[in-house]
Amino acid sequence: MTQPRTVFIVSDRTGITAETLGHSLLTQFDAVKFNVVTVPFLNTPDKARALVARIQDAGGDAGLKPLVFSTLVNDELRDIVSDADALVIDFFDAFIGPLERELGISSTHASGKAHGMADYASYTNRIEAMNFALANDDGVTTRHYTKADVVLVGVSRSGKTPTSLYLALHYGLYAANFPLTADDLERGTMPKGLMPFRQKLFGLTIEPDRLAQIRNERRPDSKYAASEQVRFEVRSAEALYNENAIPFLNTTHMSIEEIATTIMHITGLKRRNF
Amino acid sequence: MTQPRTVFIVSDRTGITAETLGHSLLTQFDAVKFNVVTVPFLNTPDKARALVARIQDAGGDAGLKPLVFSTLVNDELRDIVSDADALVIDFFDAFIGPLERELGISSTHASGKAHGMADYASYTNRIEAMNFALANDDGVTTRHYTKADVVLVGVSRSGKTPTSLYLALHYGLYAANFPLTADDLERGTMPKGLMPFRQKLFGLTIEPDRLAQIRNERRPDSKYAASEQVRFEVRSAEALYNENAIPFLNTTHMSIEEIATTIMHITGLKRRNF
Repeated sequence: MTQPRTVFIVSDRTGITAETLGHSLLTQFDAVKFNVVTVPFLNTPDKARALVARIQDAGGDAGLKPLVFSTLVNDELRDIVSDADALVIDFFDAFIGPLERELGISSTHASGKAHGMADYASYTNRIEAMNFALANDDGVTTRHYTKADVVLVGVSRSGKTPTSLYLALHYGLYAANFPLTADDLERGTMPKGLMPFRQKLFGLTIEPDRLAQIRNERRPDSKYAASEQVRFEVRSAEALYNENAIPFLNTTHMSIEEIATTIMHITGLKRRNF
Repeated sequence: MTQPRTVFIVSDRTGITAETLGHSLLTQFDAVKFNVVTVPFLNTPDKARALVARIQDAGGDAGLKPLVFSTLVNDELRDIVSDADALVIDFFDAFIGPLERELGISSTHASGKAHGMADYASYTNRIEAMNFALANDDGVTTRHYTKADVVLVGVSRSGKTPTSLYLALHYGLYAANFPLTADDLERGTMPKGLMPFRQKLFGLTIEPDRLAQIRNERRPDSKYAASEQVRFEVRSAEALYNENAIPFLNTTHMSIEEIATTIMHITGLKRRNF
């Protein structure tokens, strides 16, 4: 067992960009164990100098040079941090120069732009989209579906609710969701209330074994979680999708992010905020 | 009015990393208008060659070299895209080399690791955290607060629900939220049910003018949205936070991301997934 390598994620604001960058790069090195320290809101020279001292300590203890992923916009702070005895990967430092040359203008050096509040209108839209997802979760009503960008359908625990909320919070999309119940599936027809919105329907499906496992965690040894029941529901739901030409996706091995972005890719839906 | 510059966001999977990083860089160039085209799931040489043709077209039409932000892990695909007549910024290309040298090993070149499903346990935790946030939204019950990582309190429309859901979906944290009603605020004491969980409370506040605007969009010309009412509620809520030593945050100019990460920074809460 090798010692973990200390990684500092450094930002003058939320740290979300730095974390995304660092995390993406670290996933390319499976064999190394990392000890990740997040340092957001680093916005004064004193804080920067304190960080440099922490970096030296971490390197000294472990005998391994720490890694630093940083998105500092301020030149003075960046200069201080770059003096640390570490592999410092500064995101803006690497790319702002080539971009300034290509665009023929200087960058604004404004911090916190990426995940700050762009404007009230875009913010309000995200909140309204989230309220829409909450109010139209789990088929409570189809009354507002004229406003929906997409209506997710699927059996219980196939991923409808998290996907709806993710589409709302991240992309400002109006995503409703409607469950296919055992009754619907035994009848073998799509719920009638959905048919006027057929063009907006998107189906989720999942491997029966995985679904049985998820349902068992929720209601152990129930009919709901039983292998035959789960198998029947999944097979019937997929048959309904096929009969009604509803596009669908198998979510078994996908994260919420992947499900959401794949749905946008397949349906051609565009984010309402950028 | 200058012509917009075309920007391609290219990824072999969801495109979330490329989008986050590209967006961060573009926000540093306020004066330029960008036309952003997202190209996720670019995973074959044919698709890469088709993209190169699209890039040439975009450049030709506009007479302006397009920008390409890419997170392609596959060397062959990256080589094809790098031949486009564009400023190609490839995030892996820039940083994987220095990391490989520092860590002394080769990277795995595995795509889709950053936003894929890391493992079922971590995925299940995120879903459970989201279910917790939904089941414990808006003070419906305090019964499960022993399991909460944090309980957000605040007046209606101060940002509690979106923040709870963001903390759950992104960081796997168990976030409940409880409203401070006009009754509570007239009484001038914290709701009794919250007191056993005092150490977990975190207050949200907001500038009265902005709150009045938000409430007016929801219920125009109501007492709920009236300037005096809003002013009274906000002042009383802040007084309660101070009297009860509850840390709190003014959310007026903050995005959901900033509110969530700032709460984690102040409380010391760590994400449950990475």
